[in-house]
Amino acid sequence: MKRKEQLTQTHAAILAAAREQFLTQGYQATSTREIARQVGITQPALYHHFSDKEAIFLAVVAEVGHETQTGILAVNARVKAEKLTDPVEALAAVTEVLLTVHPRDVFTVLHASFRYLAPSNKGQLGKIMMQDYLGPLAAFFDQGLVTLQPHLTSQEAASFYLTSLSPLFNNFHHVGPADASKHDQIVILLRLILFGIATKN
Amino acid sequence: MKRKEQLTQTHAAILAAAREQFLTQGYQATSTREIARQVGITQPALYHHFSDKEAIFLAVVAEVGHETQTGILAVNARVKAEKLTDPVEALAAVTEVLLTVHPRDVFTVLHASFRYLAPSNKGQLGKIMMQDYLGPLAAFFDQGLVTLQPHLTSQEAASFYLTSLSPLFNNFHHVGPADASKHDQIVILLRLILFGIATKN
Repeated sequence: MKRKEQLTQTHAAILAAAREQFLTQGYQATSTREIARQVGITQPALYHHFSDKEAIFLAVVAEVGHETQTGILAVNARVKAEKLTDPVEALAAVTEVLLTVHPRDVFTVLHASFRYLAPSNKGQLGKIMMQDYLGPLAAFFDQGLVTLQPHLTSQEAASFYLTSLSPLFNNFHHVGPADASKHDQIVILLRLILFGIATKN
Repeated sequence: MKRKEQLTQTHAAILAAAREQFLTQGYQATSTREIARQVGITQPALYHHFSDKEAIFLAVVAEVGHETQTGILAVNARVKAEKLTDPVEALAAVTEVLLTVHPRDVFTVLHASFRYLAPSNKGQLGKIMMQDYLGPLAAFFDQGLVTLQPHLTSQEAASFYLTSLSPLFNNFHHVGPADASKHDQIVILLRLILFGIATKN
């Protein structure tokens, strides 16, 4: 194998190992030593590809963010083409995208990393959050399939939706009846996010 | 000072340092070495008081849980005495209790620790969660000041409320206008939790 090909392969292997670690363990619990060990290279070899742990993390988040954005925009296109006409089912399709891409709570993993990052990387993370998560989600709500509460912006709706999803990523708080399928659990939670826990007297 | 008094003082100092660490950094990032350093004792001296990190964590969670339970039950009593008659303001009072006791997201700190605990300690944590958080919150909803959606149990309402609070514990997702006071932010988020982001058709 040529050196260039080998470098490309190693780069991809680092990203894959880092993605697995960062998305399941979180930013802080992930070590570059463990990533290098999994790839079968030395730490100096790893630093040939990425300047530091933050750089690897941002590369992973950029990749994951891109997949999320693509997935949500595909759902938005199905809504536009009127292939998805039920608000809850359409939002369930968005939710499936997030659950497929992220083994753990998106919000928790990204937010928990925030305090550890250098200012410029914080800015980068905020940009990805806006461009790949909140933007496409706000665009979903802007399509009008869901009728938002008066005075609520599509971005506020997107934020609340995203920060209320955490029960789906774990079994600590179970959603719905014990035998509820994943899809049923999603629908139960989305109804709470959409219509709340209470009725106006 | 007598040895017994000194032991009691050291015990309290360990708990105070551990509480600060666990509630701000989370379970995993907290080390017994750092707690011992802050108290000004050796690690073996610390282990004279608590068998291991998990034992200190559970002692902290028991203390914090007890304060939470007391605070929520006091709000429930004010609702019962009809001193709090507005559903949103009553739930805001409950939320103030949680924000006062916890510098960081309750749900995230407790949940993130779960995977690291021994089975018996997992059970203990689950018991505290039920008895000090979900139980008093469900009792709040059982009082009927908030009219729950049909078929929603008070415990399901309590769960959704608790897992949707995270934006209040950080500035990553800001709630409401940039100049909103903390109380305004609480009220805006609670309206979303109570009545949802959408109107039915």
